[in-house]
Amino acid sequence: MSHSLKDAYGALYQRFHRHHQLAHLSAMANWDYATMMPAGGSQARTEALAELDVLMHQAMTAPDLADLFAKVDVKDLDEWQAANLHEMKRAWQQSTVLPEDLVRAKRLAGAKCEHEWRSQRKANDWQSFAKNLKPVVELSREEAALRAQATGLSAYDALVDLYESGMTSATLDTLFAELKTWLPNLIQTITEQQAKEPYLVPQGPFAVADQERLGRAVMTTLGFDFQGGRLDVSAHPFCGGVPEDVRLTTRYAEDDFTQSLMGVIHETGHARYEQNLPRPWISQPVARARSMGIHESQSLLFEMQIGRHPAFLEYLAPLIQQHIGAQPAIAVDNLQRLYSRVQPGLIRVDADEVTYPAHVMLRYDIERALIEGRMTVDDIPDAWNEKMQAYLGLDTRGNYRDGPMQDIHWTDGAFGYFPSYTLGAMYAAQQFATLAQGIPDLEHCLATGQLSNIFAWLESSIWSQASVYDTDTLMTRATGEVLNPKYLKAHLERRYLLKA
Amino acid sequence: MSHSLKDAYGALYQRFHRHHQLAHLSAMANWDYATMMPAGGSQARTEALAELDVLMHQAMTAPDLADLFAKVDVKDLDEWQAANLHEMKRAWQQSTVLPEDLVRAKRLAGAKCEHEWRSQRKANDWQSFAKNLKPVVELSREEAALRAQATGLSAYDALVDLYESGMTSATLDTLFAELKTWLPNLIQTITEQQAKEPYLVPQGPFAVADQERLGRAVMTTLGFDFQGGRLDVSAHPFCGGVPEDVRLTTRYAEDDFTQSLMGVIHETGHARYEQNLPRPWISQPVARARSMGIHESQSLLFEMQIGRHPAFLEYLAPLIQQHIGAQPAIAVDNLQRLYSRVQPGLIRVDADEVTYPAHVMLRYDIERALIEGRMTVDDIPDAWNEKMQAYLGLDTRGNYRDGPMQDIHWTDGAFGYFPSYTLGAMYAAQQFATLAQGIPDLEHCLATGQLSNIFAWLESSIWSQASVYDTDTLMTRATGEVLNPKYLKAHLERRYLLKA
Repeated sequence: MSHSLKDAYGALYQRFHRHHQLAHLSAMANWDYATMMPAGGSQARTEALAELDVLMHQAMTAPDLADLFAKVDVKDLDEWQAANLHEMKRAWQQSTVLPEDLVRAKRLAGAKCEHEWRSQRKANDWQSFAKNLKPVVELSREEAALRAQATGLSAYDALVDLYESGMTSATLDTLFAELKTWLPNLIQTITEQQAKEPYLVPQGPFAVADQERLGRAVMTTLGFDFQGGRLDVSAHPFCGGVPEDVRLTTRYAEDDFTQSLMGVIHETGHARYEQNLPRPWISQPVARARSMGIHESQSLLFEMQIGRHPAFLEYLAPLIQQHIGAQPAIAVDNLQRLYSRVQPGLIRVDADEVTYPAHVMLRYDIERALIEGRMTVDDIPDAWNEKMQAYLGLDTRGNYRDGPMQDIHWTDGAFGYFPSYTLGAMYAAQQFATLAQGIPDLEHCLATGQLSNIFAWLESSIWSQASVYDTDTLMTRATGEVLNPKYLKAHLERRYLLKA
Repeated sequence: MSHSLKDAYGALYQRFHRHHQLAHLSAMANWDYATMMPAGGSQARTEALAELDVLMHQAMTAPDLADLFAKVDVKDLDEWQAANLHEMKRAWQQSTVLPEDLVRAKRLAGAKCEHEWRSQRKANDWQSFAKNLKPVVELSREEAALRAQATGLSAYDALVDLYESGMTSATLDTLFAELKTWLPNLIQTITEQQAKEPYLVPQGPFAVADQERLGRAVMTTLGFDFQGGRLDVSAHPFCGGVPEDVRLTTRYAEDDFTQSLMGVIHETGHARYEQNLPRPWISQPVARARSMGIHESQSLLFEMQIGRHPAFLEYLAPLIQQHIGAQPAIAVDNLQRLYSRVQPGLIRVDADEVTYPAHVMLRYDIERALIEGRMTVDDIPDAWNEKMQAYLGLDTRGNYRDGPMQDIHWTDGAFGYFPSYTLGAMYAAQQFATLAQGIPDLEHCLATGQLSNIFAWLESSIWSQASVYDTDTLMTRATGEVLNPKYLKAHLERRYLLKA
């Protein structure tokens, strides 16, 4: 290895190391915005974050970076260094393609749209929301066009690629078309079957402090490192912060502990991925989570494959009783019925895992059409209603609040993100099917809260691998094949028809 | 005004506006460090903050700033613009004088010293602490030498000037010499008198949640804007955040509500200054608090002049009873005795306002000698003991924990800061003496919690004036004269000898 080559890679390493420090400040300021900040702090915070965006963008588009990249010969690097170089280049190309003005304009339009959406949603005020969403869509189209030009991808695919590297709408079309062949029937069969099964609804109130203690107890079982993270409250639960200090949130309803409990389990899946990314590389792009779909696979593996598993509910039931008190509705068999309930509904985040893909496909259809210029913001409510009717048989006319105004994603222009949720469900089912083969006493492990074998597989197969491989390779090394939707189908049929 | 002149000032305005955004992120990340961050997040946070320091330093030392400053003619500016230019120049000169390596080295040495001090203090481990403090002192001496060279001040004065613009050790020597002529006698007279006055100690436990509600109620009386700030808990109470989102902290002891209550009142004084700095100028240096001494004057005016005033305690007593329950020790007359108790003690932050200046003078003597090279870190414990004996008659030999290891200030090299506390007490007494003349029914206002006349005076005389005038002018416009220590003497004699 010649001296100068090593220098160029070292210089790039240093640039990304410094970038990581700024990303830390951005992550923490965003977490604070959602969890701690009083309303009056909003404008100053938004301006500070916009300034940081610009600085990070400037660092990522420094004129000498092209030169440094040109000087590195990948043959002089080991496997992780080479993968790091690849991810560096990807991040660099994604940044250089956008002019600074567009970055700033998008942040400000997004912040305005998101901020006012909070009250507009409550007021069911679609007209005012649409007015703010239009510039966000316009700027996202500009962004998509620039990214398409740079990558050779289509406009929408260029946005999807930001969240799910290598994924295309051609593949998504195939996956979703296959889903549509069996999902409507499955939903119908399950709902008909469940209509004959009575279940009890737990009777509150359940004190927030008790729910929080229960959540922390489950997080401990799930291996969350409280020395490197926190649990707090926010209007919209998320997993934020940085790998060294993971901040996850939930929200509590006094009349229902079941949602915050599964919410915490879900976010803990995200959190453990972050907490177990490879520390020696932590400041570098190669140490980041592989994709949003793989990230979601960890939260859904925790929530759907572990958390709602009938055997794990045997472990959870006494823990719940200990923290919030016993009642017939918290017996194991009733919890199993509660946590496998399937019911078409208006709200994505409240949806069960069987109807969830319908919510995602609907959004995929609409956001793709928006970005490709085949639909305008004003067309959204009709399209929304039409697809909700088609996929889930529900009428959403006039109900914007629980229709196209229910999600935060589009408000700041995160078009291309939604497919990650269903990809995550597919990845999770496939990963769990594989790891289950290596744990003969899986049911017993789940029923007793002994999850170390599961975590060991995830740690070695997914978490520690970060972004060293592309998604297809990561999945092939972990499960023997690339993404295959048959595992999600098998999981749903087993869980909801065979109840195992 | 020529176009180019306006441009140069406008360009400077814009630079400082962007600097303000970065300062926002730094303030919030520091607040989070003290209040929210789990231990495992410390290293990553420290590195992120160090990186931000460097960026802010780079922005403040950009090579074209000299040119921009040269192009502005102060004659083309109005009063506030001219004052802003003066403060911009001061900030710029303070930054350019330090090389980037020194900024980074000081931050890292300070963070290490402060971090390890937390456990070293508990262990009373002076030797290990001294080892970390030595490089901090060394770097601070380097800093002082560079600042002295640039300003023409002495080494120590150049550090004092960072916190208290215009203040010198010559003035401090005069002020403290005057103090020493009457303070020891006053302490003796008061303690002898109070020895004959029995008082009751409130009997806990006092639930933290109750103390917090009490604190919030008092903050509301004191005009704190909760839409633009928060109250939280930290090991060392402080007022942080940004003017638009002020984050103040306290700490609670279950066996004693009296400290957290006065602590909250104290920090609310800082907070209201920040919350009422002039908003149209908020991103600019001219809108910053005038000095650390003036800042402390607001917290001490709230705590000592208002909070512990016998009349205000008539207002507080029922509020306390309402929130934490009634008992004889919470009767007005007993609270008045409790909150005017004078007792020489080892700990500065627990000291009453009469013995407090002794703690400050001791630190002033030592830190000045350290910076001027007349003392080494190894000399501190002996010097500490000697001065505690001389000023307060207390022996500190072997007790490093409650001696030279009790404060956080020196750990990160804030030498020159300590005098601000006693200057603040002097400014506060002088301001309150002036505003009291304009409020004939002051006692009644205090006794009924009607403080709007006091706040109106502070708002117009201090808060809204920010840094538009130098400290002498600010005080002269507000009180008719420059700093005069006679007001502190008069206040202490009236409060502790005449009990009014």
